[in-house]
Amino acid sequence: MTGVMPLDRPGEKPLDRIMDLVRADMGAVDAILTDQLNSSTDLIPKVAAHLIAAGGKRVRPLLTLASARLCGYEGAHAVRLAAAVEFIHTATLLHDDVVDGSATRRGRPAANRLWGNKPTILVGDFLFSRAFQLMVETGSVDVLRILSAASAIIAEGEVMQLATANNLTTTEDDHLAVIRAKTAALFAAATEVGGMVAGASPERVEGLRVYGDCLGIAFQLADDALDYAGEAGATGKDAGDDFREGKVTAPVLNAFASARNDDERAFWRRVIEKNDQTDDDLDRAVTLMRRDRAVERTLDDARRYGAQAKAALDVFAASPLRDDLCGLVDYVVDRDR
Amino acid sequence: MTGVMPLDRPGEKPLDRIMDLVRADMGAVDAILTDQLNSSTDLIPKVAAHLIAAGGKRVRPLLTLASARLCGYEGAHAVRLAAAVEFIHTATLLHDDVVDGSATRRGRPAANRLWGNKPTILVGDFLFSRAFQLMVETGSVDVLRILSAASAIIAEGEVMQLATANNLTTTEDDHLAVIRAKTAALFAAATEVGGMVAGASPERVEGLRVYGDCLGIAFQLADDALDYAGEAGATGKDAGDDFREGKVTAPVLNAFASARNDDERAFWRRVIEKNDQTDDDLDRAVTLMRRDRAVERTLDDARRYGAQAKAALDVFAASPLRDDLCGLVDYVVDRDR
Repeated sequence: MTGVMPLDRPGEKPLDRIMDLVRADMGAVDAILTDQLNSSTDLIPKVAAHLIAAGGKRVRPLLTLASARLCGYEGAHAVRLAAAVEFIHTATLLHDDVVDGSATRRGRPAANRLWGNKPTILVGDFLFSRAFQLMVETGSVDVLRILSAASAIIAEGEVMQLATANNLTTTEDDHLAVIRAKTAALFAAATEVGGMVAGASPERVEGLRVYGDCLGIAFQLADDALDYAGEAGATGKDAGDDFREGKVTAPVLNAFASARNDDERAFWRRVIEKNDQTDDDLDRAVTLMRRDRAVERTLDDARRYGAQAKAALDVFAASPLRDDLCGLVDYVVDRDR
Repeated sequence: MTGVMPLDRPGEKPLDRIMDLVRADMGAVDAILTDQLNSSTDLIPKVAAHLIAAGGKRVRPLLTLASARLCGYEGAHAVRLAAAVEFIHTATLLHDDVVDGSATRRGRPAANRLWGNKPTILVGDFLFSRAFQLMVETGSVDVLRILSAASAIIAEGEVMQLATANNLTTTEDDHLAVIRAKTAALFAAATEVGGMVAGASPERVEGLRVYGDCLGIAFQLADDALDYAGEAGATGKDAGDDFREGKVTAPVLNAFASARNDDERAFWRRVIEKNDQTDDDLDRAVTLMRRDRAVERTLDDARRYGAQAKAALDVFAASPLRDDLCGLVDYVVDRDR
C-alpha cells in the first residue's frame, strides 16, 4: 500500500493498477500457459492446469511485463518470457510439494495428493522444459543465460534449505542466502529479463535486477511471517505449515534468539530440531513470538529490503508505473495472504 | 559387433574405437561434469557425483562428440554440448529413481536410497539447469531449441509410461511412442546437435538425427530385453526390475500376445496388471518368454531399427568413423549389460 489508498479499495491497489496496465499482456500470458500444456498425454495438462488454474498471484510474470513496460517495451517477447517465468515457478512448486509432502497449495489439495508423487515430479520437469522452449522463441541467449542460472540457483537454494531445516544454529546470513536463492533469484531474473528484452541500458537492467532481488527477499520474509500470523483460509496455505514441518524461518530464528531461559530454548529445540510436537505447541510458539515481536521484526527486515527495492528504481524517471512498482513493495510486505 | 571382431577383444569394439578417437574430448567432458557440480552446498556434488562417478557407458556424450567429429568439427562447443547431454541424462536418471523407487543404479545403491527423495529430486533439477547453462555457453539458440524440445518430450514419455504401466492393452504403437520419447529423443538430440555445432548441412544434420532416433529405440528395446536375459551383476541394474514393477515392456507385450490359453493370460494379468507376484513368477515369465521367443523377437525389432540407424548415415562418405558408428549399433543391440 502507498499509505494514501485505503486497503478496502482493491481497484486502487498498486498490484491491481499494474495488472490493469498490462491486462491484455497478462491475458496473452494466460493463453500461452494453457496452450503450452498441450501434450500427447492427458495427465500433463490435468496436473499442471490444476495448479495454474488455481491462480496464485501471478506476481512473477507481472514483474516481467511491468519491467519491460517500464523500459518502454510492449512487444510479444515479454509475454513469452513472463509465461516462461511462471512455468519455472510452477515447476518448482510441484517439486516443492513432493519434497515437503504438502497437503494443500493455493487453497486446494496439492497435486501430489491428487495424482501422487510420480506425475507431480514429471510434470514439473515438463513445465521446466517448456519454459526453456518459450525462452528459445525470443532468440535471446542473454535471457537464456539469466534464467538458466536462476534455475540452478533456485535448486541450490532448495538443497541449502534441506541442510538448514530443523537446524536452529542456522545463522541469519545462512538463512538469507537460502531465501535469496530459493525465492529472490526468480524475482530478480523476472525483472532483469523484462529490462533486457526491452533493450534497456545495463544500468537500468541492473536496477531492475536489484529491485527484483530485494522485492523477492521481502516477499519471502513476509511469507515466513504470514505462516505465524495468517489464517488458513486467507493465505491458501495452511497457517502453521512451516511450524509443523519444523522449518527454520526468520520468525523462528528471531524467537529462538530471544528465548529467555533454558525451558524456552528446549521448547524450540523440541518442536523445530526434533520436530516433536503436540497440539498446543503452535499456540505456545505464537505466544512466545508475540511477546518478543519475532514476527514484527521479520516484517521490519522485509520493509528494509523493500526500501532497497524502491531505491533501485531511482535509475528510472518518475512515472505512475514506477510509483506502482514501489507501491507493490509495500503491498507484498503488508499483504494478508 | 561388426561380426568380424570377436567379442572378447574389447579394444577392438566400435564403442572403444570411437572412445579412443575422442578420448581427449571425453576427458574434457568429464572435467566439465566434475567442475560444474561445484556449488555453495556440499550435498549437490555428493549426490550427483555418486551417479556420475559410477560411470555408466557415457553413450550419449560419446554420440555428440562422434557426430561432431564425423562432420569434421573438433572445437570446444561439442565438449560443452556432450556434457550438457550427459547432465540431462543424469537428471532424468535421478528423477526416474525417485519415480520408480529404485534400489540400485549402475551397480550401486540408487541416490534416493542413500540421501532420500528430496535431495535426489532437487539435484536433478540442479543438473538440468546446469545443462542449459552449458548450452548457453555455445551461444547457439538452435542447440537450445533442440535440447529443450527433447527435454519436454522425455518428460512426456515418462508420463506416458506411467499411463501404460501395468496395462497389457498397450498397443505396440503406444509402446513405441513411449520409448521413442523417453529414450530415443535424447539420443536423437545428442547426435543432431553434434552435427549442428559442426555447421553440417541440413541433410547431414537430419541424417544424424535419424541415426540417433533409431539407435535410441534399438538401445531401449535391447535394454528391455536385457531385463529378462541379463544377470544382476553384469547389467548394473537388477535383472527382473521391470518385471517386479509390472512394467509393460516389449518382451512382456510379445509374451502376452503369444499366450496360449486363459491360464497364461491370467498369469500375465496378475503379475503385470495387478502387480501381484510370488517368488516363482519371474522364472515362469522367463520360461514362457523363452518358449515364445519373446525376448528374441524384441531383439529382432531392435536390429530392424539398428539397420535404419545405419542407413541414415549413408549421407556421409565412407570412413572408419562412419563404420564404427554403424558397428556401435550392433554393439548396443547385442550388448550383455
